[in-house]
Amino acid sequence: MTPGAATGPGDIALAADPRARTSVGVPLQQWMQACQQRFERQAEQQLPAADAEPQRLHRAMRYAVLDGGKRVRPLLAYAAGELAGADARALDAVALAVEYVHAYSLVHDDMPCMDNDVLRRGKPTVHVAFDEATAMLAGDALQAEAFNVLAQAPLGTDLRLELIAELARAAGTAGMCGGQALDLAALGQSLEPAQLERMHRMKTGALLRAAVLMGAQAGGLGGAPLVALERYAAAVGLAFQIVDDILDVESSSAELGKTAGKDLAQNKPTYVSVLGLAEAKLRAQQLRASAGQALLDTGLPAERQARLQQLADLIIVRRH
Amino acid sequence: MTPGAATGPGDIALAADPRARTSVGVPLQQWMQACQQRFERQAEQQLPAADAEPQRLHRAMRYAVLDGGKRVRPLLAYAAGELAGADARALDAVALAVEYVHAYSLVHDDMPCMDNDVLRRGKPTVHVAFDEATAMLAGDALQAEAFNVLAQAPLGTDLRLELIAELARAAGTAGMCGGQALDLAALGQSLEPAQLERMHRMKTGALLRAAVLMGAQAGGLGGAPLVALERYAAAVGLAFQIVDDILDVESSSAELGKTAGKDLAQNKPTYVSVLGLAEAKLRAQQLRASAGQALLDTGLPAERQARLQQLADLIIVRRH
Repeated sequence: MTPGAATGPGDIALAADPRARTSVGVPLQQWMQACQQRFERQAEQQLPAADAEPQRLHRAMRYAVLDGGKRVRPLLAYAAGELAGADARALDAVALAVEYVHAYSLVHDDMPCMDNDVLRRGKPTVHVAFDEATAMLAGDALQAEAFNVLAQAPLGTDLRLELIAELARAAGTAGMCGGQALDLAALGQSLEPAQLERMHRMKTGALLRAAVLMGAQAGGLGGAPLVALERYAAAVGLAFQIVDDILDVESSSAELGKTAGKDLAQNKPTYVSVLGLAEAKLRAQQLRASAGQALLDTGLPAERQARLQQLADLIIVRRH
Repeated sequence: MTPGAATGPGDIALAADPRARTSVGVPLQQWMQACQQRFERQAEQQLPAADAEPQRLHRAMRYAVLDGGKRVRPLLAYAAGELAGADARALDAVALAVEYVHAYSLVHDDMPCMDNDVLRRGKPTVHVAFDEATAMLAGDALQAEAFNVLAQAPLGTDLRLELIAELARAAGTAGMCGGQALDLAALGQSLEPAQLERMHRMKTGALLRAAVLMGAQAGGLGGAPLVALERYAAAVGLAFQIVDDILDVESSSAELGKTAGKDLAQNKPTYVSVLGLAEAKLRAQQLRASAGQALLDTGLPAERQARLQQLADLIIVRRH
């Protein structure tokens, strides 16, 4: 890692050894911070300028994306890119695209007609800081921008199209939007564990899974290793939501940076309400083991797998 | 034209002579009806099934797109495809993508936090027929689906990427969403004609322009003819909005299939309020002449230009 270098693949821990494109030996926290800083810088530059018209829309888009969030999806994309030996600049495009889609979904999800939430990432939500119409447009524009970024990514045309198709599937009715619709339909209902799992695999799992797969595809990974990685991605995507459900009952709003206990308040079925707390925790641990096994099954060198293994551990043991 | 043929490029007037890919000799109304029916059939098949989960979301997406609308953007795409000799199946993808983006923008635009409209295409708006949360998600999912359709279009990878980039630009902050944000900011303001024009070139012009350009690009058109066509597309896109503004004051809601007189009621600057009715009508006629000149400047055979000329005339003399 070369701290302070402003651009190019050399400035993130990912490229501690630029030729090998692995960050082996760089501590996780340091790697994460480098990735997060790199992401912030890329987004800062890529998003439309705050002083360009229409300013209010641009400020809302920047507010929705910048300066907040754990950047779980970008981290997964960078780590999967490391597994596949991807170029860091191509991974920037993947990281921006998946995070734009995630950010837009939060903006829309927080609006009064959905979850009606006022706090997100420790700040007022976009429709509170701006207004509802601007929040809706900012979300809409961020989704368009996600596809624009992928269309311009420094990759061959075939790969760019693959990534675009992957993101469109993950964001649409078979993925995130579909999962949110199932979530709406489930309000006040009692769900079977299988129904709950399907909803969460779509609602949050699909985009997390896409972050991993797109990062790996950007490095040209295919065949059996990609199939194995898909199992890792699916396990981590589901585990993330289970842990979210657990944290929603066990943590405070201050720790989470968003309103705690709201699933229960809204009478939403969660892993905790459907399986119970102990069973939900057990399921998260099982998924952690599945993710680890799937990584081994890729057959790729252990040092290339390390970041994805660390992220799976982190996602499952996190406190916020 | 082969009436009754169910699939393939042979079933629309576009391919009256399949080898030449022109519909020369087919009357405009018949050609339009064939295109509209073809579009309806394609959308019917391509949209997620109403009986597949999440059903409410899928029904809302279908409600937003099917069975309504003049299909101006698909018609422009098919006509521009005829200019360029494009394959009809590739044009289907363009027509679906631009119309999905248009339909999603109407769904979001009609919501209470934006225009709060209850009538669209002669039917209750989506948030009235369903609910606000479903309307927002249906719009979001339609946007993702638009990019998905282009990613799967029967065209080479380079062309597909060009189309995706074109649509992302037209839909995003430099186009439709940006124009809507300018529109919001203009409520109750007095605008200079140049500011009004810029807003409308983005808000409605960008997507109409994209429909034309994408239809032509799908047929491989480039270079000087595409540059000339861009002038046609820009003129028609702007004229469309001027005529909309004129109709908003001159027509009834029954004629329009949507609420008439709402621009005035909402104190929105329009061509009529900024330029006056007579000047607005003159401007529309000037743009009609510019569009015709631009078509001639493409240097392409007159029989290939005919549909685009007819559509320009139709858009500018329409009554609803």
